Amino acid sequence: MPKRNKISISVIKRLPRYYRFLLELKVGGARHRISSRELSARMGLTASQIRQDFNCFGGFGQQGYGYNIEQLHYEIGNILGLDHHYRTVIIGAGNLGRALATHIEFELRGFNLIGIFDKNEAMAGQMVRGIPVRHINGLDEFCRENLPQVAVLCIPKDSAPAVVGQLMKLGIKGFWNFSHYDISVDYPGFPVENVHLGDSLMTLCYKVSEELPADHTTKSDRLP
Amino acid sequence: MPKRNKISISVIKRLPRYYRFLLELKVGGARHRISSRELSARMGLTASQIRQDFNCFGGFGQQGYGYNIEQLHYEIGNILGLDHHYRTVIIGAGNLGRALATHIEFELRGFNLIGIFDKNEAMAGQMVRGIPVRHINGLDEFCRENLPQVAVLCIPKDSAPAVVGQLMKLGIKGFWNFSHYDISVDYPGFPVENVHLGDSLMTLCYKVSEELPADHTTKSDRLP
Repeated sequence: MPKRNKISISVIKRLPRYYRFLLELKVGGARHRISSRELSARMGLTASQIRQDFNCFGGFGQQGYGYNIEQLHYEIGNILGLDHHYRTVIIGAGNLGRALATHIEFELRGFNLIGIFDKNEAMAGQMVRGIPVRHINGLDEFCRENLPQVAVLCIPKDSAPAVVGQLMKLGIKGFWNFSHYDISVDYPGFPVENVHLGDSLMTLCYKVSEELPADHTTKSDRLP
Repeated sequence: MPKRNKISISVIKRLPRYYRFLLELKVGGARHRISSRELSARMGLTASQIRQDFNCFGGFGQQGYGYNIEQLHYEIGNILGLDHHYRTVIIGAGNLGRALATHIEFELRGFNLIGIFDKNEAMAGQMVRGIPVRHINGLDEFCRENLPQVAVLCIPKDSAPAVVGQLMKLGIKGFWNFSHYDISVDYPGFPVENVHLGDSLMTLCYKVSEELPADHTTKSDRLP
């Protein structure tokens, strides 16, 4: 794999979609290759965009010959780093934390869920996806013993800065952040993926009001 | 408000963040105005980007004088269309659908949750956030009586195309889509906001592997 520099964040954000789509093709079965034209028709992107995206990583295919589905799927998974199985804890076992624990296939996406924490003592010992909820007071000890690498924050904004500071000291390497605390303002450059569901809903409100389409149907960054 | 054309999707996606941040300032209390420089320091954007963003909507402030917090908050809410209270149904009352129903403040974000549906008969009648889960067979009748405008899809990909087709006929105007069904491929141009939690998690995997920061800390579309 050639060295990769300056990959645009929009390319990176498309990789999981390619990965997901190629997995479907793979599971679907009968075929071995797909052309960028065909990929483009089924993904709502232009064929040239797909070729450009893949060229950021050195290609994967030969002009006019199409892509090997299994190989492309494997390579994109490699680029995403899905074989890392980062040890992961969820902080906050409320509705959202529980839904993520049960709904998200962490193991298929590069992570391994090893602990769930909450400050509510009444929750301690309850099982979520086969994992006992632990009281947040035990976080330090748990981390020193189990060395989690990634934390999923499902706590309110007010509680987040202290927990993030604590986790930083304990060696966490990245956050999946559902809280509204802006980690990057206090820790610029640290790996964070923010999911602001409320922001997404407000964006939908704008789109419905203006009758705008989903983002990836537009051919550029400009809306019609 | 001046007519708005060709607003970039990246500007639109920042509006909820401004809105959220201004609300905090408003609730925080003591102050009336904020400069773009101060906003920028607290939001991790450049002051010039903030001025450019607001200029897309005709400004909101006077050079060197700062923005009126309450007015700016109100205007951005207006642009987002948060006063619409779109009648909304959730399709799928599994972990994710329930978590969204209880966790998300629909009413503060332009929506009014009026119904929750599931194909599992055992769930019918269970209360989620004070709303009874209804069997999906009653969707047509419910929609003809209550005219929902927006649907939140918390169902597997396989079930999604049929339900989307049905809801289209029933007059739905937009989707908050948590399923992996790509609505825009079949209905290009239709208002959809996709939330692919698994994709977000894979993006985090890439960022942790490459030690990349959160998106909005980069000054351009290029990562360092």
